[in-house]
Amino acid sequence: MAINNIENSYEQVWLEYKLDKDSSYKRFFSNYYINFSGDISNNIIKELALFTNKKFGYNITECKSIKDSTLILKLVSDKTLGDEGFDFSLTKTQVIIKANNAVGVLYGVFHIIRDVNCNSTILEYNFKSIPQNPLRILNHWDNMSGEIERGYSGKSFFFKDGEIIINERIKDYARIIASVGINTININNVNVYDAHKLITEEYLEKLNTLTDIFKGYGIKLFISVSFASPMVIGGLNSADPLNKDVITWWKDRCRLIYKMVPELGGFLIKADSEGRPGPFTYGRTHADGANMLAECIDEFNGIIIWRCFVYNCQQDWRDTKTDRARSGYDNFKPLDGKFKDNVILQIKNGPMDFQVREPVSPLFGGLENTNQLLEVQIAQEYTGQQKHVCYLIPMFKEILDFNTYCNSKYGKVSDIISGKTFNKTNTGIVAVTNTGDDQNWTGHDLAGANLYGFARLAWDTTLTANQIAEEWIKQTFNNNKKVVDIVSGILLNSWESYEKYNAPLGIGWMVNPNNHFGPNVDGYEYDRWGTYHRADHLGVGIDRTKTGTGFTLQFYKKNEELFSNIKTCPDELKLFFHRLDYNFVLDSGKTIIQHIYDSHFDGVEDVESFLKNWKNLKALIDNKSYKRVLDRLKFQLTHAKEWRDVINTYFYRKSSISDKKGRYIY
Amino acid sequence: MAINNIENSYEQVWLEYKLDKDSSYKRFFSNYYINFSGDISNNIIKELALFTNKKFGYNITECKSIKDSTLILKLVSDKTLGDEGFDFSLTKTQVIIKANNAVGVLYGVFHIIRDVNCNSTILEYNFKSIPQNPLRILNHWDNMSGEIERGYSGKSFFFKDGEIIINERIKDYARIIASVGINTININNVNVYDAHKLITEEYLEKLNTLTDIFKGYGIKLFISVSFASPMVIGGLNSADPLNKDVITWWKDRCRLIYKMVPELGGFLIKADSEGRPGPFTYGRTHADGANMLAECIDEFNGIIIWRCFVYNCQQDWRDTKTDRARSGYDNFKPLDGKFKDNVILQIKNGPMDFQVREPVSPLFGGLENTNQLLEVQIAQEYTGQQKHVCYLIPMFKEILDFNTYCNSKYGKVSDIISGKTFNKTNTGIVAVTNTGDDQNWTGHDLAGANLYGFARLAWDTTLTANQIAEEWIKQTFNNNKKVVDIVSGILLNSWESYEKYNAPLGIGWMVNPNNHFGPNVDGYEYDRWGTYHRADHLGVGIDRTKTGTGFTLQFYKKNEELFSNIKTCPDELKLFFHRLDYNFVLDSGKTIIQHIYDSHFDGVEDVESFLKNWKNLKALIDNKSYKRVLDRLKFQLTHAKEWRDVINTYFYRKSSISDKKGRYIY
Repeated sequence: MAINNIENSYEQVWLEYKLDKDSSYKRFFSNYYINFSGDISNNIIKELALFTNKKFGYNITECKSIKDSTLILKLVSDKTLGDEGFDFSLTKTQVIIKANNAVGVLYGVFHIIRDVNCNSTILEYNFKSIPQNPLRILNHWDNMSGEIERGYSGKSFFFKDGEIIINERIKDYARIIASVGINTININNVNVYDAHKLITEEYLEKLNTLTDIFKGYGIKLFISVSFASPMVIGGLNSADPLNKDVITWWKDRCRLIYKMVPELGGFLIKADSEGRPGPFTYGRTHADGANMLAECIDEFNGIIIWRCFVYNCQQDWRDTKTDRARSGYDNFKPLDGKFKDNVILQIKNGPMDFQVREPVSPLFGGLENTNQLLEVQIAQEYTGQQKHVCYLIPMFKEILDFNTYCNSKYGKVSDIISGKTFNKTNTGIVAVTNTGDDQNWTGHDLAGANLYGFARLAWDTTLTANQIAEEWIKQTFNNNKKVVDIVSGILLNSWESYEKYNAPLGIGWMVNPNNHFGPNVDGYEYDRWGTYHRADHLGVGIDRTKTGTGFTLQFYKKNEELFSNIKTCPDELKLFFHRLDYNFVLDSGKTIIQHIYDSHFDGVEDVESFLKNWKNLKALIDNKSYKRVLDRLKFQLTHAKEWRDVINTYFYRKSSISDKKGRYIY
Repeated sequence: MAINNIENSYEQVWLEYKLDKDSSYKRFFSNYYINFSGDISNNIIKELALFTNKKFGYNITECKSIKDSTLILKLVSDKTLGDEGFDFSLTKTQVIIKANNAVGVLYGVFHIIRDVNCNSTILEYNFKSIPQNPLRILNHWDNMSGEIERGYSGKSFFFKDGEIIINERIKDYARIIASVGINTININNVNVYDAHKLITEEYLEKLNTLTDIFKGYGIKLFISVSFASPMVIGGLNSADPLNKDVITWWKDRCRLIYKMVPELGGFLIKADSEGRPGPFTYGRTHADGANMLAECIDEFNGIIIWRCFVYNCQQDWRDTKTDRARSGYDNFKPLDGKFKDNVILQIKNGPMDFQVREPVSPLFGGLENTNQLLEVQIAQEYTGQQKHVCYLIPMFKEILDFNTYCNSKYGKVSDIISGKTFNKTNTGIVAVTNTGDDQNWTGHDLAGANLYGFARLAWDTTLTANQIAEEWIKQTFNNNKKVVDIVSGILLNSWESYEKYNAPLGIGWMVNPNNHFGPNVDGYEYDRWGTYHRADHLGVGIDRTKTGTGFTLQFYKKNEELFSNIKTCPDELKLFFHRLDYNFVLDSGKTIIQHIYDSHFDGVEDVESFLKNWKNLKALIDNKSYKRVLDRLKFQLTHAKEWRDVINTYFYRKSSISDKKGRYIY
């Protein structure tokens, strides 16, 4: 199962092909015809060879005649397919994959491999597949030391001890993420601690080697750079984006970078955020900052991705007027239309920070003249840190399906980020990734479904969470119906279960500070991060309507009304938007306090059932994965109980209201 | 003011002598007669030379004739003086200091220097001064890396980058602490992280050099060793104290150590505590562990100091039966009488851990046949970390004056640790020290009063907190009445003020986990450390009487009754011993909730007055000290407000009871 590597042994996730000599799909893999060459072409051929060898037990051969070949791979000219789409058709004896570019064919090949592995009947169709999002990105928060910020799957496979790693695992990573359509990665932490030097001459050569590897799989490579680079590595005494010396420094630096790494996608910047340097220091706007860099990088077709995660992280907890939820919109809405075409704003899905439940950020739809990326997090920072199972695709689906009402036809978040709504091309979706150098890549085996699922959704936002789960299970484990049923049962319920025993009703943040793991109701309550629940003896929650902080006013009218009206505000966000008494009756018919108790007991019961069901898989899946998941589910059960007891006890001690069902609360 | 040193510049604390050419005391310092030689004698002569030179502006000379000398230093034979006491007498023209040993004379010399610096009239008396505690110890929690655990005054001056430092500062440190009667120091952290190697051959030579330096000032040097040394440095697979190989290993090791460091005092051990290895691992008792080492070290007159800080640090917060307060007594009382004569148990003043307010540990008086040391902490771990002024001598006085009722005549803690009560000689008092390589040694200038005061109190437990404060102020700053009044006013109120804005009424632990700095009411509430307040909507506190955890039963009857009876239990410990409603009326006439509000507002006002008063000293003390203290008092005021607001808000939100005085609570 594992391939031995110089660094470490590791698995092939959903690209583990299990031998099936009797497969009816064999007939399409006798030989291939290909009408183009180059790095991607070579990689396609390698992939086909590996697949046929492992799946069917023989070596596929090249065929120079279209007529005699079973698998035809062709570059064509077809405007409807765009840069990355492919056309898939089949006859009784032939599969034909056509695309405008080599990468489209690559995606088509991975498509048929997926279909075969899933035993899918989709082979019956002829169809075109065009990715809905132009940019489908993974962000690595890897430091050059090898540590990963918010990493729960081991260390970085990009960096070690300050150096860039080039090895087989990197190549395998490229093919793994290309197989699900990822076309962009950012390889280092947005908090640039030890990676200033990445843009110095010493590192650019290796960076170029990396860039080439990923280019062979249609993937553009970005790096995070510090806004303070002119000072830190340039020795200037300013990083003011309007300062001439600063501008000259960046121009020269970009010329050097692109001379040595011509295929670099661009820079990702976290500025003026959580202590990071930025244009605010010099009284400049984020548009000033981003546009200056965009100008410098434009001649190389480079792109500046600029994060909108800007808020006051020095808030006084006594200050009830400031609302962190407002900050993204307050900071960036006034700049709408002021960014250059090669600037993209990267906006977190919610207005806070990847909590288990948040409303959608009102910047989506709010920004009408600005390139946008939706940023989600598959690194489970606040959702169990890959010690808990938490399949996030249902959450992402809700976000993508959210109607902002910014446009009568294309008002959904998925429409906006696809570029459709405002007719943009530099748009898409990005995930803070969950990978590391663990043998299984994602720490928790089941967290692999988030990596797979995010990418699949990025390609096609109409896929359902269930479809994606099934695909992943079949390829990663096997096609056994019981396996599919049990694992998808766990996956599809896991987010809701995690939410049940977490902070209640959208209020968030009841975690231990710094590591963000485990319950701590007041952990952030008297701190400076703008993350308060304000629970007292009578109630809990924040009034974010116009009578409170006014955050709801940042949404379009229909949503403003939806969230402001206590009758229409969804239960799961009630405490995010409203301050309510413990005796307030939810749509569910339960009081808030009883909901807290019930959901926390229920959440633990859910995990008990996950564990019980998982045990039924012992004989049905490979033992290594079985054991690893089993251990994590056992831990999750213990930890879910801790969550249950701490949250319930906290609210019981505060409210003095007993559980109606008489269960023991400490 | 500062002496330049290779490492760093630093000050001379209370040994800064200010020139006073007209001093009437000059007449005793024309010359000296001394009838003994050796290292201590040499150091005495150096001290006299330095003092007369700086104080009076000339060089003292030796005089070979007793009759013609003004300062007579004599070794005599006088049983009433013991090993360290001195006899002090004077005529119109002569001061005579007599002692059985050189160190007694050294103490006498530092005594007269102190008197002169204080302009004291004590010179009128003839008297004998004999230290009340045989052992007067400072414990350094210095790691060999140079970091100090719970250090708030810079880095270690003993270690740097894994090596022992030998320099002038070490020598100055020896004379500074000898000047106030310290006779023992332990130089490395009780948590032996990086100092296992201290007892390997490579380090013993330097250790011996250190030992010699301190010996010249009558100070014995101890080191902390790990109970797991046979495994960590010996390569054995056990540290079982009854295992023959382990015993042989320790015997050999002690022989090596004492061959190379013959004057080493012995070892300090923290075993089976907070993750440290110990005899429990092998099903042995602490007596088994300590006695085995004592046996190995006995032939060299070595001593084993064994800490009693043993408790379950993996408690489930849901478990209300286990009481950390009980653990010291529960663990060690059954072993009373089972320790060898050269074992001393080191017992923290309270049953928890150096909180701003705790009852005295019932082990004092409880142990009747065991050598004991009282351990206090002048490192202000829980008392403001030398950012807040907190003069701890009044607290230590209360502890020392506490009557355990173990003995009708000598029942006080001070009697027990002096050796009087149970007729012991290996007894005394120890402080976790507050020094580091900061220029002023203690971070906060006013924290110097704790170092000074602890040592003075260790020598003479009948000194008052006020006397000690005055002595320290006069020597450290000057004799100006206003300076003495203002600084002693701040010092003498500072502990009470700190307590006012800290956790209320003895319950403790409302601090941020790990760093123990700043308010966090629930910081330890759902954690594993046995430190709970259990506040709910109605009340707060722990019932530690016989109806609760039974901790009070560990005291002698009179104290058991005192603490158990809600009417006699002192207000300041009410919540330590009892669970009470917020509306419970204290002896003060206030309800608990109103006490919380009032004391927290009062505490902040106290700090405001400290700051205001301090500003009146601008022209009266040296500017460097003035500024340093000013900055810290400003910080303290801001931080005291944070304490006030967090604690008050927490209890207001929980209790729903308004402040009677209508002040704003968040």
